[in-house]
Amino acid sequence: MLLAVALVSPLQAQSAPLSAEDSDPRTLGWMQGFPPPPDRIIGQPESNYFSFPKLRWTVCHFRELLPTRQVSRGLGAPTTLEYALDTGIDAVTFTPLGGDAPMTWKASLTANYTDGLLIMHRGKVVYEHYAGCLDEAGQHGAMSVTKSMTGLLAEILVAEGQLDETAQVSSLIPELRDSAFGNATVRQVMEMTTGLDYSEDYADPEAEVWTYSAAASPLPKPEGYVGPRTYFEYLATVQAQGNHGDAFGYKTINTDALGWIIARTSGHSVSDLLAARIWGPMGAEQDAYYTVDSIGTPFAGGGLSAGLRDLARVGQLVLNEGELNGQRLFPAAAIERIRQGGDKSAFAKAGYALLPGASYRGMWWVLHNEHGAFAARGVHGQTIYIDPTAEMVIVRFASHPVAANSANDPTSLPAYQAVADYLMTSE
Amino acid sequence: MLLAVALVSPLQAQSAPLSAEDSDPRTLGWMQGFPPPPDRIIGQPESNYFSFPKLRWTVCHFRELLPTRQVSRGLGAPTTLEYALDTGIDAVTFTPLGGDAPMTWKASLTANYTDGLLIMHRGKVVYEHYAGCLDEAGQHGAMSVTKSMTGLLAEILVAEGQLDETAQVSSLIPELRDSAFGNATVRQVMEMTTGLDYSEDYADPEAEVWTYSAAASPLPKPEGYVGPRTYFEYLATVQAQGNHGDAFGYKTINTDALGWIIARTSGHSVSDLLAARIWGPMGAEQDAYYTVDSIGTPFAGGGLSAGLRDLARVGQLVLNEGELNGQRLFPAAAIERIRQGGDKSAFAKAGYALLPGASYRGMWWVLHNEHGAFAARGVHGQTIYIDPTAEMVIVRFASHPVAANSANDPTSLPAYQAVADYLMTSE
Repeated sequence: MLLAVALVSPLQAQSAPLSAEDSDPRTLGWMQGFPPPPDRIIGQPESNYFSFPKLRWTVCHFRELLPTRQVSRGLGAPTTLEYALDTGIDAVTFTPLGGDAPMTWKASLTANYTDGLLIMHRGKVVYEHYAGCLDEAGQHGAMSVTKSMTGLLAEILVAEGQLDETAQVSSLIPELRDSAFGNATVRQVMEMTTGLDYSEDYADPEAEVWTYSAAASPLPKPEGYVGPRTYFEYLATVQAQGNHGDAFGYKTINTDALGWIIARTSGHSVSDLLAARIWGPMGAEQDAYYTVDSIGTPFAGGGLSAGLRDLARVGQLVLNEGELNGQRLFPAAAIERIRQGGDKSAFAKAGYALLPGASYRGMWWVLHNEHGAFAARGVHGQTIYIDPTAEMVIVRFASHPVAANSANDPTSLPAYQAVADYLMTSE
Repeated sequence: MLLAVALVSPLQAQSAPLSAEDSDPRTLGWMQGFPPPPDRIIGQPESNYFSFPKLRWTVCHFRELLPTRQVSRGLGAPTTLEYALDTGIDAVTFTPLGGDAPMTWKASLTANYTDGLLIMHRGKVVYEHYAGCLDEAGQHGAMSVTKSMTGLLAEILVAEGQLDETAQVSSLIPELRDSAFGNATVRQVMEMTTGLDYSEDYADPEAEVWTYSAAASPLPKPEGYVGPRTYFEYLATVQAQGNHGDAFGYKTINTDALGWIIARTSGHSVSDLLAARIWGPMGAEQDAYYTVDSIGTPFAGGGLSAGLRDLARVGQLVLNEGELNGQRLFPAAAIERIRQGGDKSAFAKAGYALLPGASYRGMWWVLHNEHGAFAARGVHGQTIYIDPTAEMVIVRFASHPVAANSANDPTSLPAYQAVADYLMTSE
């Protein structure tokens, strides 16, 4: 649940948040005019830019608030996406989790404050929709979908034999020897089954996430600040709690540790490696970018912003297990291992009521449903949802007022399943 | 001479700066490793990142230190640059201004700490060179070459009848009524013949540039700060000195005022307008970007970073007076007016010893030499040099230890002339 950067306040309780239509950033007029009206300015950091409804503007504009590092698409022509738009999808109906009245697919888009949604079926775009701050030429914060990019890179390195998943972290990153990560294995980090004394409870002012956020901020530290100043410095301070391997605990710092492992192993930051292994080879049509800390380290746990179609290209490449137009970009084993899933019993201990029987592997959420679906998931509704049985990829950018995906899952997960069923039977 | 942002210290006197080779950022190892060694970190803002030799890294990495705003190239394929490389250029010789020994073109590249240089002749690339922090897929700070982009946009709006160059600034921007800009004309702003009480002498701690830099910084203001907080707020405080129209005075704030005029007139920030009118239509191969202030205003006076080839595309488009592959992107009159030049007698009063007989028009430097050359120029050696007679465009990115172009002009201007002569006779 970690937000993109430091300096965010705990999310305020939203008893009755504005609707998607009423909170549309264009309707509210954020950052329009030269200058915008004083009460319509979203600046850094006084304006609390990641609070709703401001976040509905901010999710498309992180680079205007923070230093960032490019994920280059390269210099050539982008690969072409084939289109076979299906106008029947809007009318597909489903029953929200825990509900009893049916809802249409189209209604789910506004219910979930969707900013962008694209569906690929059998390699072709069958649905594409933009709203709020996003259009086809924009980039949107992927939030914790970033984690799945980090995990994908790690699985590629493992599949290629460049990274030993059984290695102890301290053998790769000596600086982490005295931290809780030191005696964890790379695989435990990749599955977030490390035992870490770390809380991301934003409502608790004593939670470790606040120290982490202060360390991660690229802004000048307050006078007298004596804490860690970078991701790396923070990670070295993390203490143990419980035993590695026992339970799944969704803690962003695992991904930052994995980003460090990837950088030390490959010689490239996650932003550069994502460009070299994925963004360039797949023919992205836009550069992407990561927010960075004060020494330029990309935020491997949540800092990526990208275009919707490019995220769809990633999803399709993952569905295709690394093959694109007959060319192999990475070993199929990287995806096969993700699809196998992680330790279900360790996952169950985390108590995700809406994800029964699921697991977490290579920083992807594996649903273990009948279709073998797996997903990248980020706060406020970001996702790459891959259904191998339906040969379907859904990518969604959103700015739901509630961070936790438990707020949008009831109108997302059954909707995805309904569209999958529709696509499989409508041919 | 304004640097990209606030928080730069006055340039230190460099009695014997490192050579181009010895100061190569790869040689010095800036920002290499995870993390880089402590004395090889260039961060924000404590590290004084725009001091030599750090600036040799920084000029390619502004976005990693500062918030930025995208200049989108769009989503299609870039236009192809035709190549006809001429290996004879390296051996072209010239005599530096004020010197007596000849120098080769090739030697001028290192003498000027060149990071990238591309020459177009009759629409084809005849020379391309990268060094230091730059490669073909990188972006480099254009510094005050940015001003010429702002001026180009303004000349386009004037030529299209959207902007009245005779209008008083106060009639377009009421917020500037009580500032020195209020009773200046748009044209006086475009030619920097406004009378402004403003000094960019970085050696003077009382110089107005420091207030300007503090206002322009996107970083949180120090506690107790009471000055202007944005470009716009600063511009409204500028006081008069002398009479408008009397003398050329190279003051960056004119360009920021012009950026404001452009935004108010067109409804688009200079970054968005540059994307819509130039970057997209010309088929750029990379996005560019601007640094921004605390409310997202792009730095019209110096904030652009771009790829070398894309800057060459701009230069070629200007040489072609707005035509690209048979399509007209803007009225030829926009360039014709720049090429006419500005008020030579007003320019002469500024005392540029190395630019005798020159003038400044539409934020371009017009040399009034035999070839009718004109140029965009930025500190530390950035340029777009256009020679209509030789049908030649030279673009240079550089990181010369001395900011003022008077330090590199002696080994640049005669070199450009020599290459022009070579290209005209070598066919």
